[in-house]
Amino acid sequence: MIAKPCGSLAVQLLICCTLMLVFADPVAPAPAPAPAPTTRSFRWDVEYIMWAPDCQQSVMIGINGKFPGPTITANAGDRISVEVTNSLHTEGLVIHWHGIKQIGTPWADGTASISQCPINPGETFTYEFVADKPGTFFYHGHFGMQRAAGLYGSLIVNGTDEQKEPFADEYDGELNMLLSDWYHENVYAQAAGLDGKDKHWQWVGEPQTLLINGRGQFDCSLGINRDRRACDRRKTDAFCKEEDKSERCELIRRSECGPFCEASQCAPVVFDVQPGKTYRVRIASTTSLSALNVQVQGHKLTVVEADGNFVAPFDVDDIDIYSGESYSVLLKTDQRQLPYWISVGVRGRKPKTLNALAILNYTNSKSGWPAGVPPATPAWDNVTRSKEFTYKIKARAGTVRPPEAVDRRIVMLNTQNWVKGHIKWAINHVTLSLPATPYLGAYYYGIEAIAFDATAESPDTYDQSYDIEKPPDAQAPEAQSPTAVSDRVYRITHGTVVDVVLQNANALEKGVSESHPWHLHGHDFWVLGYGDGLYNHDRDSKALDTESPPLRNTVVLFPHGWTVLRFVADNPGVWAFHCHIEPHLHMGMGVIFAEGMEKLRELNVPREAMMCGQATKAVVPLAPAMAPSPPSP
Amino acid sequence: MIAKPCGSLAVQLLICCTLMLVFADPVAPAPAPAPAPTTRSFRWDVEYIMWAPDCQQSVMIGINGKFPGPTITANAGDRISVEVTNSLHTEGLVIHWHGIKQIGTPWADGTASISQCPINPGETFTYEFVADKPGTFFYHGHFGMQRAAGLYGSLIVNGTDEQKEPFADEYDGELNMLLSDWYHENVYAQAAGLDGKDKHWQWVGEPQTLLINGRGQFDCSLGINRDRRACDRRKTDAFCKEEDKSERCELIRRSECGPFCEASQCAPVVFDVQPGKTYRVRIASTTSLSALNVQVQGHKLTVVEADGNFVAPFDVDDIDIYSGESYSVLLKTDQRQLPYWISVGVRGRKPKTLNALAILNYTNSKSGWPAGVPPATPAWDNVTRSKEFTYKIKARAGTVRPPEAVDRRIVMLNTQNWVKGHIKWAINHVTLSLPATPYLGAYYYGIEAIAFDATAESPDTYDQSYDIEKPPDAQAPEAQSPTAVSDRVYRITHGTVVDVVLQNANALEKGVSESHPWHLHGHDFWVLGYGDGLYNHDRDSKALDTESPPLRNTVVLFPHGWTVLRFVADNPGVWAFHCHIEPHLHMGMGVIFAEGMEKLRELNVPREAMMCGQATKAVVPLAPAMAPSPPSP
Repeated sequence: MIAKPCGSLAVQLLICCTLMLVFADPVAPAPAPAPAPTTRSFRWDVEYIMWAPDCQQSVMIGINGKFPGPTITANAGDRISVEVTNSLHTEGLVIHWHGIKQIGTPWADGTASISQCPINPGETFTYEFVADKPGTFFYHGHFGMQRAAGLYGSLIVNGTDEQKEPFADEYDGELNMLLSDWYHENVYAQAAGLDGKDKHWQWVGEPQTLLINGRGQFDCSLGINRDRRACDRRKTDAFCKEEDKSERCELIRRSECGPFCEASQCAPVVFDVQPGKTYRVRIASTTSLSALNVQVQGHKLTVVEADGNFVAPFDVDDIDIYSGESYSVLLKTDQRQLPYWISVGVRGRKPKTLNALAILNYTNSKSGWPAGVPPATPAWDNVTRSKEFTYKIKARAGTVRPPEAVDRRIVMLNTQNWVKGHIKWAINHVTLSLPATPYLGAYYYGIEAIAFDATAESPDTYDQSYDIEKPPDAQAPEAQSPTAVSDRVYRITHGTVVDVVLQNANALEKGVSESHPWHLHGHDFWVLGYGDGLYNHDRDSKALDTESPPLRNTVVLFPHGWTVLRFVADNPGVWAFHCHIEPHLHMGMGVIFAEGMEKLRELNVPREAMMCGQATKAVVPLAPAMAPSPPSP
Repeated sequence: MIAKPCGSLAVQLLICCTLMLVFADPVAPAPAPAPAPTTRSFRWDVEYIMWAPDCQQSVMIGINGKFPGPTITANAGDRISVEVTNSLHTEGLVIHWHGIKQIGTPWADGTASISQCPINPGETFTYEFVADKPGTFFYHGHFGMQRAAGLYGSLIVNGTDEQKEPFADEYDGELNMLLSDWYHENVYAQAAGLDGKDKHWQWVGEPQTLLINGRGQFDCSLGINRDRRACDRRKTDAFCKEEDKSERCELIRRSECGPFCEASQCAPVVFDVQPGKTYRVRIASTTSLSALNVQVQGHKLTVVEADGNFVAPFDVDDIDIYSGESYSVLLKTDQRQLPYWISVGVRGRKPKTLNALAILNYTNSKSGWPAGVPPATPAWDNVTRSKEFTYKIKARAGTVRPPEAVDRRIVMLNTQNWVKGHIKWAINHVTLSLPATPYLGAYYYGIEAIAFDATAESPDTYDQSYDIEKPPDAQAPEAQSPTAVSDRVYRITHGTVVDVVLQNANALEKGVSESHPWHLHGHDFWVLGYGDGLYNHDRDSKALDTESPPLRNTVVLFPHGWTVLRFVADNPGVWAFHCHIEPHLHMGMGVIFAEGMEKLRELNVPREAMMCGQATKAVVPLAPAMAPSPPSP
């Protein structure tokens, strides 16, 4: 970061502009062969902070006083230990390590109601798990809508001699971009709107700002027809209230260069690069809602990694990325030594949010703002283009193939429904409602019967007469297939090979079907294929790709289409499988796999992670002497 | 309530005005002699709701879908059972029954970290306790700043034949007013500001609106120079966003009479009264910050009850009421049959908040808005006037007198301090930080050593060389009496007679000392006296009133002054004693009395209320068969 405050705007505009930016971490060389696995320990204090991610001050969840949370970097095989202290005042919290399989440590998956109790205010819990493979990952809150409140950060696992990435020798340095979206309405109000009954239901709408590494500029386009002075002034006013005499605001006022000074929390990110090199750009998305498109002005991108798995390299001008996904792309700095726009825009929903911009800055370039108009996002409703990108993703040669024999096929119809006056998302007419007792604890203590609805399993299919092209209320009367609110699960025996057919359908509004990025915990899965309309097993299963299907942990289900994936139930634990759109999950769009519970006794589940809800009834005091004795007569 | 929508404003203004109001519950006759004690059971679902208490939509904590929570009415001696389900998504909650002594049921006092674990999301906890005496009480959240988020309501205990109120035959009907203040900034941001370090510390400021029974009108004076049409229009716009097509908003638009229609959540309260009668007006304050003054245009008030205790009746034009206090006043409807203003304004702090207004409406009056200007609040900084009112409060003849022999005297110096970059309030240089494990559970399970700092007790006094007229940083070097952040307690043996001397001091700002309403849980105490400056035991103890000191559960400590109170430690439990100003408590302004812990074994403490924090380590699984066995070799 540049510490020198900007000078008078009138005099030093050009010079200042080079300083009005926050430089990303210096270019790191490709990692040297790593030493033997080690334990990487971190101490995090999670608390509310006042922050201005898009130049508007908001209350956010910060880690160690900052947003976004610190980047964790480890080598494949390392043990990661994060001691999390909850300094929120009234809220529990958990942290999910998105993309980490948690082999043998299912209680460290960080999913409230599923893998553990929320860490209560004032309590400390230590997540300990192995970074099982190299890749681009991230972490985030997984309780209520705390991810949307800002509880997230990057988790990068480097390759090693034992687990060498096939493209390891093809790049000279790395850049990291964690993408997110930001709402000015707090998540409590967002949730209350989504919980609203009948006409009081209120959708969260489009985000106010897109963020790159936690930075954006609300309602202020840096790129197109930019009037930086007005933009800065507006932002300064918003960012620093008149009565705020803090050092930061005084600095902004003195420097007259607005929030894009180094002192600001919303200055655009600058990635410094050297010419004539190849960079690995890690891109991950933890958006609450938005599907994104990422472009780098004047540069091609070669996709090499998806969700920590190696894909057959292919070149593109831009990539689509859905919430929950990550990619690595290789970028050659083979252009003139100038600054270039990195542009991130919304896809799939009619955008009301300005593109987020960062800067790729060649060393020795005549510094300043990039020339020209930042790359525009492809037409938001061009689904064909999105499919073309997605269909290109294939496993790199050498990737393990899926088993051929399938033990169980679960077809999951995705519908949007009115349920007792509330709008919910449902899978096979069941909308997920999480219990107070974590499933993992319920199985561990043998109290399934009192902890959740264990009398029935989630259904493996749906009534095939359902017409996916019609809104639900145009189907047979709701009474014939009423949507249930339930915390029931799928029980999956250890070793089962499972195929999941995600079947999209029409939403409540006629002619509307949405994209859903489905994310599976505890596993990667093979993406065997996608298609439009209704999945027909006899016809469509023949066209599935079992030769080079990519491994992913998140996959998109396109509007009115289907997606088929396969995984092996080789990791005992209770795993969520859900749409990664935060409000959709809040509205019940997920299922639970209770996998290999018959092997649970081989796991050393920490009691303190399970001591809530009904589990408190499954224990007795250690010091019975302290139990009450009746008063003496 | 009046269901008929208002007609066209232009045509029917006068008629409409009579309807643009929300009528309070009909006048209830004085309660008939009550039957034998019974159990009154309630089921509450606590969740976030979107509500517009002051015509501005906010997210609030509601009970059973409404704000404020339902009024509980019981008879003295009744058992009250409230089954509370926490439907907040990520927050724990507790509910404190303010003024109920919880004799024998200290775990039902509803204080997080003190009397119980927070009820986690999705969990249900049943509060069961006896309404031990008649009086005007209320309930509210006691975890973080949830009270300020709207979690409160009235709790009214009627007299019975066994516990007859001495003024029971002197009134014909009752009115109930629960007063509060409301901030537009959510409590997470308020808390984050208060937690801020160094120059990032941010005070909550004055509330936006005062509420009477949960209703107010932001930035819109109904009384003075009122332009109802503009006021209504402004509020309608604010209340119903353009895109909001809800029935409520459509009704407001149709009726053209703005948010003060019956359909609105912010319509002023109308108390209907009959002429020639006497009414008992119950007034309680659960404000976050504001000290208030209450007046009824053209009517005298006779004070008869304070905090559920009988006071020697005295007549006043208005009453002061601090957060945590309650009063009953008798009001004779002896004026002309007109509507009158009830006016509530801020005292003790320079007001930036408009007075709250309600209407006392004589039956058969020519309905419409009251004539004239609503009563103005006395000068905010006239502390002498406040003291005059407070000093008038004496016990009614027949009230039990305090024991004469005092076993323990605790002097509590109230200071505002910088503590490691944070602004805190401290008592004898200790600022309260609550533990994750409730004290009651820690004692019950014998795990004090790991649950909180049990190595030392809170100090019974302070260095008498401290100059209460100077700011703390003008004292001897901080190193000589550094302020500690601690969760330590006062241990009080059962049966001890305790005197507490609250000693006020200068705050951080020169020449400033604030009023603090101190509230004690589990007890009433006798208020033996008040004085200005430094309490001098030899001189001042002689002037204390042990003949007719009023019993209270909340007492004000005036700026730069002292207050002496006495209580008997006859109720085993862990009880908070704290400033009832929500941000002051958040900043550490409280102490903990662990009282009669040696008798704890006589109490039947429910385990599920204590199973959090370190207590989870004090139990073993009930089903050891489920505990993990090592994997077979």
